[in-house]
Amino acid sequence: MSSNLEFWLKTPIIFGVLGLIIATFFYIRVIRLPGGNETMERIAGYIRAGSMAFLARQYKTLAIYAAAVFVLISWQLGTTPGVCFLIGSFLSLLAGFIGMKAATYANVKTTQAARTGVKANALLTALDGGAVMGLSVASFGLIGLGGLYLFFKDSALLSPSMHAFAVGASSIALFARIGGGIYTKAADVGSDIAGKVVQGIPEDDPRNPGVIADNVGDNVGDVAGMGADIYESMIAAIVAAMAIALTSPEIPMLVQSGIAEDNKLMAVGLPLVLSGLGLAVSIICIFIARLMKHMNPATVLRGSLIFPPIILAVVSFVVMNCLSVTQSVTYILAAGAVGGALIGLVTDYYTSSTPVAKIAESSTRGAGITVIKGLAVGMESTALPMLIVALVAFLSNKYLGLYGIALSAVGMLGGTAVVMTVDAYGPISDNAGGISEMSGLGPEVRDITDELDAVGNTTAAIGKGFAIGSAILTVLALFSAFNIEVNHIRMQKGLEAMSLVLSDPNILIGLLVGSILPFLVGSTTMLAVGNAAGTIVNEIARQFKEIPGLLELKAEPDTKAVVDIATKAALREMILPGMIAVLAPVIIGFLMGPAVLAGMLAGSLAVGATMSLFMANAGGAWDNAKKFIEKGKLPGHKKGGDAHKAAVVGDMVGDPFKDTSGPGIAILIKVMSVVSLLIAPLIATL
Amino acid sequence: MSSNLEFWLKTPIIFGVLGLIIATFFYIRVIRLPGGNETMERIAGYIRAGSMAFLARQYKTLAIYAAAVFVLISWQLGTTPGVCFLIGSFLSLLAGFIGMKAATYANVKTTQAARTGVKANALLTALDGGAVMGLSVASFGLIGLGGLYLFFKDSALLSPSMHAFAVGASSIALFARIGGGIYTKAADVGSDIAGKVVQGIPEDDPRNPGVIADNVGDNVGDVAGMGADIYESMIAAIVAAMAIALTSPEIPMLVQSGIAEDNKLMAVGLPLVLSGLGLAVSIICIFIARLMKHMNPATVLRGSLIFPPIILAVVSFVVMNCLSVTQSVTYILAAGAVGGALIGLVTDYYTSSTPVAKIAESSTRGAGITVIKGLAVGMESTALPMLIVALVAFLSNKYLGLYGIALSAVGMLGGTAVVMTVDAYGPISDNAGGISEMSGLGPEVRDITDELDAVGNTTAAIGKGFAIGSAILTVLALFSAFNIEVNHIRMQKGLEAMSLVLSDPNILIGLLVGSILPFLVGSTTMLAVGNAAGTIVNEIARQFKEIPGLLELKAEPDTKAVVDIATKAALREMILPGMIAVLAPVIIGFLMGPAVLAGMLAGSLAVGATMSLFMANAGGAWDNAKKFIEKGKLPGHKKGGDAHKAAVVGDMVGDPFKDTSGPGIAILIKVMSVVSLLIAPLIATL
Repeated sequence: MSSNLEFWLKTPIIFGVLGLIIATFFYIRVIRLPGGNETMERIAGYIRAGSMAFLARQYKTLAIYAAAVFVLISWQLGTTPGVCFLIGSFLSLLAGFIGMKAATYANVKTTQAARTGVKANALLTALDGGAVMGLSVASFGLIGLGGLYLFFKDSALLSPSMHAFAVGASSIALFARIGGGIYTKAADVGSDIAGKVVQGIPEDDPRNPGVIADNVGDNVGDVAGMGADIYESMIAAIVAAMAIALTSPEIPMLVQSGIAEDNKLMAVGLPLVLSGLGLAVSIICIFIARLMKHMNPATVLRGSLIFPPIILAVVSFVVMNCLSVTQSVTYILAAGAVGGALIGLVTDYYTSSTPVAKIAESSTRGAGITVIKGLAVGMESTALPMLIVALVAFLSNKYLGLYGIALSAVGMLGGTAVVMTVDAYGPISDNAGGISEMSGLGPEVRDITDELDAVGNTTAAIGKGFAIGSAILTVLALFSAFNIEVNHIRMQKGLEAMSLVLSDPNILIGLLVGSILPFLVGSTTMLAVGNAAGTIVNEIARQFKEIPGLLELKAEPDTKAVVDIATKAALREMILPGMIAVLAPVIIGFLMGPAVLAGMLAGSLAVGATMSLFMANAGGAWDNAKKFIEKGKLPGHKKGGDAHKAAVVGDMVGDPFKDTSGPGIAILIKVMSVVSLLIAPLIATL
Repeated sequence: MSSNLEFWLKTPIIFGVLGLIIATFFYIRVIRLPGGNETMERIAGYIRAGSMAFLARQYKTLAIYAAAVFVLISWQLGTTPGVCFLIGSFLSLLAGFIGMKAATYANVKTTQAARTGVKANALLTALDGGAVMGLSVASFGLIGLGGLYLFFKDSALLSPSMHAFAVGASSIALFARIGGGIYTKAADVGSDIAGKVVQGIPEDDPRNPGVIADNVGDNVGDVAGMGADIYESMIAAIVAAMAIALTSPEIPMLVQSGIAEDNKLMAVGLPLVLSGLGLAVSIICIFIARLMKHMNPATVLRGSLIFPPIILAVVSFVVMNCLSVTQSVTYILAAGAVGGALIGLVTDYYTSSTPVAKIAESSTRGAGITVIKGLAVGMESTALPMLIVALVAFLSNKYLGLYGIALSAVGMLGGTAVVMTVDAYGPISDNAGGISEMSGLGPEVRDITDELDAVGNTTAAIGKGFAIGSAILTVLALFSAFNIEVNHIRMQKGLEAMSLVLSDPNILIGLLVGSILPFLVGSTTMLAVGNAAGTIVNEIARQFKEIPGLLELKAEPDTKAVVDIATKAALREMILPGMIAVLAPVIIGFLMGPAVLAGMLAGSLAVGATMSLFMANAGGAWDNAKKFIEKGKLPGHKKGGDAHKAAVVGDMVGDPFKDTSGPGIAILIKVMSVVSLLIAPLIATL
């Protein structure tokens, strides 16, 4: 059996390499596609340059952070974990760089495909562009973590190296998500206010100096930011399961042989093997989606999201049989997969169905009522996803204890490559529409890109469901891993186990402190978007004032200046919320000890999970309520009318909710758990 | 020493009776004051009749609830606790009835006093009216609970009877707060939309059929609802401390004699004694405030709020000496008092200082940015109060463990009678202003009532600080009492202690489920206000359409119809959120057992505490940002301009935030803890 497992442990790397080869193939295919007329190419060039400029400047900022953390980790835990931290960070950045480069080529090629009038080709181009990101994210993650495991599997350095690798992934995700989220919403809100409200020109109008920044924002937020986030989720889920398997005194018996040593090896390796299988299944699903290109895009994309985790469960049945491992694993994967899909459907309901129509209706009674209604919808939308997560955790725990909870997160994230492909597809088709508008292409082109974009918005909701659901499960698992690790160390040093009794005042105090943090990150990110947007509004106003003939189309706007200002503002504003997330567990852990830190993690989990669902769903619902009216679905009201104006206010509030603060809070609770796990050996005996 | 304690245990009842005598004196004084001209009397009569009609109908609805709960408690725990539940409920209703009657007389007498031009007399009248409510609340609470203790002190029925008494208080608070909160905001928002927005007539215009309902709302929400809430807080804090003292295996040594039996008696009786002293101090402070009537009203009211808990700490020093009890008690009271005052100051800062000015500034950039800014301010405002509560809990725990945490809540609520006096003062002076407007009195009258009203808004913030801070501490104490009670019973039955380890999956699942509940109550109450307001808007629109000559002042509006509709709507809408609060702990407790219930309470504590602070403070800040612009403090912008319109949107969102959902969530977490404590004996062995 052992040699059997040894073979399977190499598969994550094999599938990872395969994934990269396919990503290269897609990348080359996209690059070689025709790019359209000169205007299109020029605009696409601006967007690409702006996106890359943001990444370059962000990477520079992150280099300082990474260097500091590298020194700290190397000093406290050794150089090897320090280097693993750097590798974990670097692979995330690399995936983001490649994926965004592909996305910023794919956008204009999609427009060009739409221009030829063949919807299937446009869909395929956007999908291929997204797949470069999707495959890179999953492949780099698995090659990195799989290689790390094979390298250190018999060494005491395995735990700290894995944790440091995860902290690297988390750190990048944190800043990419928050920085990108601030950028994208500041550019969106800023351009809208300055363009639509102040100058009265339509969205994506080429005269608006902010319109390139708005399109850049889609890439840095929804491609690079989202990619780093999903990369982190996958890594964190695997690491949590492996960490529990490495240190828990009560690993459930997985192998039929019943030999404890075999069982431990299996428990540690299994999360990697399952994720590898998930990548293999995802690759197949991406090709199936490509074959279905002539079908309704909504069907293709929805199917791509929901099937991979379910197919993974089926594959797991065969492989667990082959490995002589209990089928409980398969049941857990199935629970995770079904749970993720259900959360996706719930999210879809709240952000596109009856609740959206009701918000649109309420907009006839003014902006105040629209905001109230959207907030209420967002609050209500937290219930079902949390109950589904609780149920998945309950079932997984029944089968395989805390280890089972961690595996369910791995299962839910089984389709990482496809989820990210579909997620990156969204901004690509959004950009494609922007380019066709700015290049003055006809409405028949815009019709195709609009349809692709609309599908992207729906699938984004389902993808978000998987992302948030798996994030909560992952945090549950990481939290357990932290507690087990602390007690493991205390036991080794002959100390009694840490008191984690909920009624202990220390835990309660930790709980109160932890409950603040999501609100602080929410507040700072909301303000960050406001501040950065304000800077952009001022710059656009300056250009309209100082560039003669801009409104009359006689002069070109200085789009680069806006991109530059947005970049600087976003990077400046991301520091405070980012630091709260990284420093809070360190400060509380070292000052107050591991028990208070555990209480703090529990408090921020409770608040953070619900707040991120609330904000993400409220934001999505407002966005679609506005579109509902724009599409003329609210009888007697149309774009530009009073109801629409009220809906625009809701959408403006929803923008930072759904794309900055909501995801920022979700990543906050992941980062804090991962950082806690890393520093566990340093604070365990405090 | 024992006879010494026996004397002191009678003081809560003695001070309670004294309080009622003084309340009667104030009541008679207010009634006998001159009531002004016929119009004033008529309008005040409408408000009084509407308020009483609401109470009568609400009491009828509550009677059904109370009867059902009485049967359930009597069946499961015995008739005695059932009767105590009824007494606890009845005393709350009685205090609310008397207090509201006084308030609805005091409003017009305050207007009349302002009409004679003597501000001090107007202040005194509003204060005396409020003091009837303040003294009734504290006196009835102490007489009820103090009597119950003396009656059952040697009986096994003490615990269930006390808990049932507290559940009675909590139930009334829940429905009074939520029902009153829905009524007041629905009437406010509904009248505003129908009057200001649709018909373009000013606030409090006598032609608006909703204007009486709006004034009724101030009474049923801010007098009756607030009164029931504070009554409940005081009862719950005392009961939590007594429950811990009764069942904890580790009561800290309080008495210098060191005799365990004496110590237990002292620990059980002390919370009552301290609350009695708090009432005595409050009575003195009310008279001091009356003596200072010629001073600046702001100084008088601020002082009344901050001094009583501090004086109580001083008095405690003397009495603890006399009782030979450790001065740790005094230190804890001082920590609670200072903590409460600090939270009040923080609340005051966020709802009236720089953050308000910034929200007002942001309103120049539209309603969307105003809402974003207000939400960010509200989120940020959660941090300091939570940290202060955590610090008070930390210090109290250092001195006297969990029992100390409960005592700190008792200390923070030491000034209950004064807090409630000042809280009731607010709506009385608000009503006084409304009556002067509707009666067409001159601007010199309105100037005086406006000044009194403005002070009420500020002190409301400080009062809210005490209320929320003490609520969180009380929930911490109740939560501990629940855990101790469950384990006490399990030990008696020879079972092992309930596992409350935070990393136990059951606890984590409870945590996830608990985190949803504040959001559900938030969502349902927000929607309730929207629905009820919609009903009111329709009714007002109907009247303007169907009553000829209404706009031209030739016909009278049918204010009674609006009051009637608002009453029905509020009572209908309060059922869902109320039922969530009462049933959630019962369902989870019986289905999943005490450990999952404990996890659930922890989750809802973390989310509920921060959410209620967030919503209350964001709402207060928006309200004052609107007033900031109305007072002309934002250069270049005035009432009716674009910035003001944006600020009105913020205020509209803030209305249900601060007066319905925020307080509703705060009471949710108290009710759930009290209900859990009551059902602890029934579920302890599950």
